Amino acid sequence: MRVFGIDCGTEVTGFGVVESGDGARLPQLVFLAKGAIRLPKNRPLPERLDQVFRELTAELERWRPDAVAVEEVFYSVNAKSALKLGQVRGVALLAAAQQGISVAEYAPLKIKSSVVGYGLASKEQVQFMVARLLGLAEPPQPADAADALAIAICHIHTAQTLAQQGVAH
Amino acid sequence: MRVFGIDCGTEVTGFGVVESGDGARLPQLVFLAKGAIRLPKNRPLPERLDQVFRELTAELERWRPDAVAVEEVFYSVNAKSALKLGQVRGVALLAAAQQGISVAEYAPLKIKSSVVGYGLASKEQVQFMVARLLGLAEPPQPADAADALAIAICHIHTAQTLAQQGVAH
Repeated sequence: MRVFGIDCGTEVTGFGVVESGDGARLPQLVFLAKGAIRLPKNRPLPERLDQVFRELTAELERWRPDAVAVEEVFYSVNAKSALKLGQVRGVALLAAAQQGISVAEYAPLKIKSSVVGYGLASKEQVQFMVARLLGLAEPPQPADAADALAIAICHIHTAQTLAQQGVAH
Repeated sequence: MRVFGIDCGTEVTGFGVVESGDGARLPQLVFLAKGAIRLPKNRPLPERLDQVFRELTAELERWRPDAVAVEEVFYSVNAKSALKLGQVRGVALLAAAQQGISVAEYAPLKIKSSVVGYGLASKEQVQFMVARLLGLAEPPQPADAADALAIAICHIHTAQTLAQQGVAH
């Protein structure tokens, strides 16, 4: 299973691609790619959204994942930030829908718990464990890409747990 | 000048197309089209966003407007509603950007003031004046389409005012 994690942000949107290995010859988690889409601040909003959409679409076409995973939004942000984030999130979800890829959402607590084993883990702990689980020498940079990889790992762990329990995901 | 107004909403997104006549043979404002995109509640969010995007794209291709006009979002809504609205707004702005159409934003007060002459006008007053300005026998239905027409009218009025003042819009 190949999973494309997206960490939507108003200024930077990170992505990360992880594949689940067989656990025998291949490790259980295989790192494939990561990246971050930075939005130029001086362009009109529709153009910036178009850029996120095009870049994500190109990466999805390149990696052809089985699933896209995103973070459920944490509602403690204010309405203005939520609207801005929602606009980016809308075009990210559209990019997945246009390629017929299903999208799963995970709460921040669930993602941390799935990667670190502890829902209240710090950002640094998450990045450290992402590197460790993927066999990377250092925590992936930028942080937005590391977060996207964490979301992808969470999806794979969740799917594996459900498979062990005999539940179709 | 042909303007495509969009009233983004979480459940219904209205649109309306208005052209500015020459004021002599043609009235100053000519009604061309209106409609509302209703989102099926029982489909996953990415599919719903895809539907809004496709329908708006089809209407933009059909009407080939010179500009798209949307409402600036009123931040008194809560963060959860703002995120949902932002997602729809993101794909609407993307639809315009992908066709190279510029997007103008107007505050609710400005729209009401431009259509009714009074920024604190009621929704009914706005709908009544939209019908009157466009020479329609009745206020356009649904309300979301009427709001979209009001946004388009606001853009034309603003452009005409700027043109009279010798300012390029």
